Amino acid sequence: MYTTDTTFDAGALDSVVDQLCSTGDHLAHTRRANGVDRKLPSRDMVVEIIEALRSVLFPGYFGKSELPADSLRFHVGATLDVALRMLRVQTARCLLFANESGVQQEADAATRAKDVVREFTSRLPEVRRLLATDVEAAYEGDPAATSPDEAIFCYPGIQAIANVRLAHELYRLDVPLLPRIISEHAHSITGIDIHPGAKIGEHFFIDHGTGVVVGETCVIGRNVRVYQGVTLGAKSFPLDEHGHPIKGIPRHPIVEDDVIIYGGATILGRITIGRGTTIGGNVWLTHSVPPGSRITQAQALHERYESGGGI
Amino acid sequence: MYTTDTTFDAGALDSVVDQLCSTGDHLAHTRRANGVDRKLPSRDMVVEIIEALRSVLFPGYFGKSELPADSLRFHVGATLDVALRMLRVQTARCLLFANESGVQQEADAATRAKDVVREFTSRLPEVRRLLATDVEAAYEGDPAATSPDEAIFCYPGIQAIANVRLAHELYRLDVPLLPRIISEHAHSITGIDIHPGAKIGEHFFIDHGTGVVVGETCVIGRNVRVYQGVTLGAKSFPLDEHGHPIKGIPRHPIVEDDVIIYGGATILGRITIGRGTTIGGNVWLTHSVPPGSRITQAQALHERYESGGGI
Amino acid sequence: MYTTDTTFDAGALDSVVDQLCSTGDHLAHTRRANGVDRKLPSRDMVVEIIEALRSVLFPGYFGKSELPADSLRFHVGATLDVALRMLRVQTARCLLFANESGVQQEADAATRAKDVVREFTSRLPEVRRLLATDVEAAYEGDPAATSPDEAIFCYPGIQAIANVRLAHELYRLDVPLLPRIISEHAHSITGIDIHPGAKIGEHFFIDHGTGVVVGETCVIGRNVRVYQGVTLGAKSFPLDEHGHPIKGIPRHPIVEDDVIIYGGATILGRITIGRGTTIGGNVWLTHSVPPGSRITQAQALHERYESGGGI
Amino acid sequence: MYTTDTTFDAGALDSVVDQLCSTGDHLAHTRRANGVDRKLPSRDMVVEIIEALRSVLFPGYFGKSELPADSLRFHVGATLDVALRMLRVQTARCLLFANESGVQQEADAATRAKDVVREFTSRLPEVRRLLATDVEAAYEGDPAATSPDEAIFCYPGIQAIANVRLAHELYRLDVPLLPRIISEHAHSITGIDIHPGAKIGEHFFIDHGTGVVVGETCVIGRNVRVYQGVTLGAKSFPLDEHGHPIKGIPRHPIVEDDVIIYGGATILGRITIGRGTTIGGNVWLTHSVPPGSRITQAQALHERYESGGGI
Amino acid sequence: MYTTDTTFDAGALDSVVDQLCSTGDHLAHTRRANGVDRKLPSRDMVVEIIEALRSVLFPGYFGKSELPADSLRFHVGATLDVALRMLRVQTARCLLFANESGVQQEADAATRAKDVVREFTSRLPEVRRLLATDVEAAYEGDPAATSPDEAIFCYPGIQAIANVRLAHELYRLDVPLLPRIISEHAHSITGIDIHPGAKIGEHFFIDHGTGVVVGETCVIGRNVRVYQGVTLGAKSFPLDEHGHPIKGIPRHPIVEDDVIIYGGATILGRITIGRGTTIGGNVWLTHSVPPGSRITQAQALHERYESGGGI
Amino acid sequence: MYTTDTTFDAGALDSVVDQLCSTGDHLAHTRRANGVDRKLPSRDMVVEIIEALRSVLFPGYFGKSELPADSLRFHVGATLDVALRMLRVQTARCLLFANESGVQQEADAATRAKDVVREFTSRLPEVRRLLATDVEAAYEGDPAATSPDEAIFCYPGIQAIANVRLAHELYRLDVPLLPRIISEHAHSITGIDIHPGAKIGEHFFIDHGTGVVVGETCVIGRNVRVYQGVTLGAKSFPLDEHGHPIKGIPRHPIVEDDVIIYGGATILGRITIGRGTTIGGNVWLTHSVPPGSRITQAQALHERYESGGGI
Repeated sequence: MYTTDTTFDAGALDSVVDQLCSTGDHLAHTRRANGVDRKLPSRDMVVEIIEALRSVLFPGYFGKSELPADSLRFHVGATLDVALRMLRVQTARCLLFANESGVQQEADAATRAKDVVREFTSRLPEVRRLLATDVEAAYEGDPAATSPDEAIFCYPGIQAIANVRLAHELYRLDVPLLPRIISEHAHSITGIDIHPGAKIGEHFFIDHGTGVVVGETCVIGRNVRVYQGVTLGAKSFPLDEHGHPIKGIPRHPIVEDDVIIYGGATILGRITIGRGTTIGGNVWLTHSVPPGSRITQAQALHERYESGGGI
Repeated sequence: MYTTDTTFDAGALDSVVDQLCSTGDHLAHTRRANGVDRKLPSRDMVVEIIEALRSVLFPGYFGKSELPADSLRFHVGATLDVALRMLRVQTARCLLFANESGVQQEADAATRAKDVVREFTSRLPEVRRLLATDVEAAYEGDPAATSPDEAIFCYPGIQAIANVRLAHELYRLDVPLLPRIISEHAHSITGIDIHPGAKIGEHFFIDHGTGVVVGETCVIGRNVRVYQGVTLGAKSFPLDEHGHPIKGIPRHPIVEDDVIIYGGATILGRITIGRGTTIGGNVWLTHSVPPGSRITQAQALHERYESGGGI
Repeated sequence: MYTTDTTFDAGALDSVVDQLCSTGDHLAHTRRANGVDRKLPSRDMVVEIIEALRSVLFPGYFGKSELPADSLRFHVGATLDVALRMLRVQTARCLLFANESGVQQEADAATRAKDVVREFTSRLPEVRRLLATDVEAAYEGDPAATSPDEAIFCYPGIQAIANVRLAHELYRLDVPLLPRIISEHAHSITGIDIHPGAKIGEHFFIDHGTGVVVGETCVIGRNVRVYQGVTLGAKSFPLDEHGHPIKGIPRHPIVEDDVIIYGGATILGRITIGRGTTIGGNVWLTHSVPPGSRITQAQALHERYESGGGI
Repeated sequence: MYTTDTTFDAGALDSVVDQLCSTGDHLAHTRRANGVDRKLPSRDMVVEIIEALRSVLFPGYFGKSELPADSLRFHVGATLDVALRMLRVQTARCLLFANESGVQQEADAATRAKDVVREFTSRLPEVRRLLATDVEAAYEGDPAATSPDEAIFCYPGIQAIANVRLAHELYRLDVPLLPRIISEHAHSITGIDIHPGAKIGEHFFIDHGTGVVVGETCVIGRNVRVYQGVTLGAKSFPLDEHGHPIKGIPRHPIVEDDVIIYGGATILGRITIGRGTTIGGNVWLTHSVPPGSRITQAQALHERYESGGGI
Repeated sequence: MYTTDTTFDAGALDSVVDQLCSTGDHLAHTRRANGVDRKLPSRDMVVEIIEALRSVLFPGYFGKSELPADSLRFHVGATLDVALRMLRVQTARCLLFANESGVQQEADAATRAKDVVREFTSRLPEVRRLLATDVEAAYEGDPAATSPDEAIFCYPGIQAIANVRLAHELYRLDVPLLPRIISEHAHSITGIDIHPGAKIGEHFFIDHGTGVVVGETCVIGRNVRVYQGVTLGAKSFPLDEHGHPIKGIPRHPIVEDDVIIYGGATILGRITIGRGTTIGGNVWLTHSVPPGSRITQAQALHERYESGGGI
Repeated sequence: MYTTDTTFDAGALDSVVDQLCSTGDHLAHTRRANGVDRKLPSRDMVVEIIEALRSVLFPGYFGKSELPADSLRFHVGATLDVALRMLRVQTARCLLFANESGVQQEADAATRAKDVVREFTSRLPEVRRLLATDVEAAYEGDPAATSPDEAIFCYPGIQAIANVRLAHELYRLDVPLLPRIISEHAHSITGIDIHPGAKIGEHFFIDHGTGVVVGETCVIGRNVRVYQGVTLGAKSFPLDEHGHPIKGIPRHPIVEDDVIIYGGATILGRITIGRGTTIGGNVWLTHSVPPGSRITQAQALHERYESGGGI
């Protein structure tokens, strides 16, 4: 019942399989602890959840393109119900898998996941409200936009912020792993890399977006506009006594309301960009600026050179 | 016939569904006008159309990898026929959906879509001719390319320009939404964000490509080469009496023939880059340069600083 | 058995199909040579192969999320077996298709593909060992990382380096086309564009990653860290007597051990970045620097301006 | 872009295609009439509709196997809504396609389809009530049945009667083609061939079922049980003046309440099987029998032979 | 975000949904008991399990058609492992769902399912041995068979007996519902309806098969051959004091070794067909016959008529 | 990277896998001969081929339901081309696999498969012509048929005869295995079991069809009508000196033109049913009857009893 047209000498495939199944390295050492087997979350499932949630936040734009008035509630309810049940399963897996969650037993994970999902769900209307302001910002901020619909339909910035606002709610509820999977899904599709820990105000607009990086402890006010290639990053991070980076310290910029940051600008460290400031393209900035500033690359570089520069 | 293992208290899910189905915001207000229900285009369908068109423009490279000579016409014809019929449906939806198209009735939309698709189809051989020159440019421009086939097969720049050249034909025919969906599809896959309104000459080559942005009113000559992270953008845009950006004004650069623009360069505003110019990496440029110029970042910055800088 | 609701006048569709089927240009001229019909590789198949290989390199993280101890060998063995058989087919197609491989007959291609795949397979345990060090580097290098699992699961840098390390093995075995298809697959998903020819040491970490470009002849030491938007490129390349770029000459940087290169830095040409050097963000560098250097943008620009600049 | 490894001499495939596309026979002559192009219904779509309807009639048994109490209405509503919209489209196609429906214009078909589907929907609760009695009959009638659930889940008779009761509602509403497609779908899966025109009372049970045939004008009372291979057929049918069978004349048996018909029995013609009768296996019967009869094969045959027999 | 092109008056769809969600009848009353929610098994999953098992029993004939010698174990092992895990889940569901299993708690169901699957697995080699004898019987018994391969590949009888032999093992292990789902799957595809309770000896051959019915308590010896339309059924069944059929009593025929039963024969009741007997086509038989008998329809009928007939 | 929640003791799964992979029985012994590995045909592929062929024989009824006039040729050509290429591959596999074909080498199989498919293709227009007469017969023969379209769309008899007429062409070309796979596919869906060797004249109609069996050496004239459960079988077959049935001897009935055979009739052996004969339901017939006969069950049984009966 088999062919003899083989690639390998007898046992060669077996030997490689044995080596790959050995579990002595980083890629395998964390699966079992405290007598509990821990399953990894499924990324495919998480993507399915996110797409379902987007389809109920923007009904008609994603998922089914034709939803009648007299049955809209049925469709939104059914889609949401399935997505939330899947979310409960994936949340429980993440809680059990990650050491830092403190959850050790499957039953505890299930209970906490239930609470998390209930809380998350109650936040969905607010997430939708915020996204509506983002869509408005996109339409107003781009002369090439012909309607808010085009913004929802075509703008990668809207897709990214939708994922991030959903992921942020799970981050706030201390779910491990899951928020990052959600934000990286958007990163993969849009090139926009926003950590789910970032706090982002309403009416946020990212134009073009490829290469944007927004760090975990960023705080962004309302009505902020950001262009492609902008980095809101950390300058450096303190190490603990073992030489490991200390996690969770505020280390990314605070950007106040009504700020515009043009393409390729790099803003690093726990500094504050004052309200109404405009940061020019390619600017490299590592110190706070007062409200109403207008920073250009040439000024910034001259100043850095004078002061002895720095990374 | 049901489980009682529920996440929500009675009515809690219902309440969230009700809030999500309320339609008082931007995300829902534009669907019905003049007594006509307007369906959104389907992005999945548009992606299917584009992939079908690419498979007839590059037969064998995309879609089926084995096409025999004696039946090539059947396959190209059948694939094209299906794609064009789908395109007619999606075009009609876009015409009816977008306010600016002036189409108010389903029958009018169908008729205009038919005309649009007929015209679009007649342009396909020319699109193919242009893409053949782009493939040639990619092979000639990259020492790592081992054959034109590798360029077609592997280069994101070729995928992006294929989508954009197709989208541009629909843009020229005043189809709303659709061209942007097509160009954003390429953006998502390649990180190359070219507005379908841009006019691009033959023999165009984008190397690496991630982060490239080309604006709506750009005019690019023949034999132009562009590297990753290049922006051909708008400097600022005039507002109308209500403070809204005025749409459709020429606001992006004109790039003449035989220009090379290296990685990370930013060129803003309705300026002209003269024929045969070379723009260095990371250059920031907001004024025209004569033919044969050679601009470096250091020169450009010095000049900007001297002149008082600018965004 | 047909409708008469047609878009085209009689013959119009036929005419376009005829034009598209004409084969007088670059997109069709290379398929048949020496009396052998050459099939193109299938990108869908290659993607399937790569995903299967990643699922055996990181069992449980990709593909099936639940693999029991008593049957792990069966699953790894079966998945690997299918993937390697598919790889043999695609390798043979690439060998036959590409002129430079020197393979002219189907039987020769099959034989060489068998050898290639046997050799490639024997390298998989080493590829896994290297990837384990990359995962460790990601966890140590990013304060936002909460576990090595998060790095494997969420970090685009890990996905990119996994594809590239696999592609590099095929590159070393002189397989045409295939390595590039694999690395471009990662490029599309992560925005990280590493040529499969690059030699990369262990414990390599790319943070965020969008816009990173690493050229074909780069040599990167161990424990190197690279941020988004970094280019390790060629400065210019010599042309042969026909004005074509000479292929295969070393033209990209050598980066020694323990180097950190911050976001947006551009390093061009066959220069050497000495061990332990830190390159600041947005730096533009075209000359070698000694071990332990610390280069900032302002310094680099000043120096370039003084020296007359350059692309 | 093509291989030359062809099966056919030049033109041979073309010639066969031309012959198959010629439209001079029965298989193609009926598609266009009165200036209206008529689309055929889609059987795949009809099957999808029926499966959706079964999943709302037996929630949990078919389709999703886990439906929670607090969201059951959402799922039933959403599934039903999609199914009914699809049903409207297929009904309109059938009305327009079939000459006998008298519908000539697309708009008329759409309007009548809307009415039909509204009426059909209002009958669904009654269909469900009838099916519940059929399930009860199956459980009571078969000593091998361990629960009503097993009957729903495993008994082909339940699947067949579900399809037929749904199809019968459409038959009553004078929808052409569609009812037959639905009943043939059940026939294909179960081997039970019941014409959608048959009137069938509640508490109907078919055991095993393969080979059962029930004709268009049958009238079956309540609490009737039928075994595999039973035919309730027509004896012969009158021809019109052109020699064609006259359609629609009552020509199949009337089976009164509480009748049992054992395997392989054949009952032909517009005869009446009186209440409470038992028909033995393999009986051949072409005349009415009074209530309470008990007919065996041997008796029936003897009688037929005595009377001169007959088909 | 919705169309107004609705079929229903306000509330009409809601009303039907409410009626369908009401749970006062047979189709919903059995899902919850003893405070435990009970999930139905998934028929799609069961079909997947069976197809996986058949692919490891007949490797190469079903599932993947090309299995190499050096990796056969990997494929059989991986396929089997997945199938058995799925089987464990479905078995646990059936145990919990069915009242008669006596299992009340999820944990008990999981434990018993594990035992069941372990036992079932250990029987697979014997099932395979039996099926090999069935294939041999098919090849020997049909002059139209050109090879044993053709029998495996094409004969519905082989498919039916494979399902039934697998289902019988689960029946013996007292798994409710599941065995019947498996045998009905074969019934649907082949028209052969064998209850999983039937005991069937080796070297069993069913030719053509449509309409064959074999009852729950049948006992069939070795080397028996059966043709299309044969029924081995129950004559009547005793009722308990409530008028319900008493379940589980031996009520179907015993067929000894080396018996042939031709097409359409009906054999009813707990009678014994003696070794080596031949039953002619369409025979109706309700009493035992001694070894070596040769029964024809005419004889059987004459005898029945003389004796006063019977069902 | 694994769970420890296992079903088996260490090695138990391995042991079962080993037993299943042993190859000492009928199910595995025929795969390798003369140093050539022989692949089994793929049934999924064969089903795909048949569905593609039906969609070009009845364009619009199967497959795509909307085919426009101006592109019909493209669709028929492309579908046919794919189907015929797949058929070539499967034919070659069958030739190589089956001992009786005499083909020993892959290259020989490929060449003969090419010839077979060319010949088969040239017969398609004739197959279509025959099927058109069958559709006409179905419409004329059934008072419940409302149009020829309904017959094509809904009648299992049409599906069965379509498969059988296609399979018969391959049977005539001495392709092993494949014809039987095709006819069994129809058997599974319709319950109609016609051997591909049967010769069937035009204008053939099977009503209801479940349980019909038509043997390999049957010869059926034109304008024959057959009802459910009819068997045209072999009475007995001579054995060779080893006790094996001798294959290929004419052993099934000859049915002349204009014969009607009612439900459940069994006609066995190489007898001739004269032109214009009517065979009544359930008749058992093992001798020839002259033209214009009218046979009933009672007559037949009486006669058999008188003559001593027989199987």
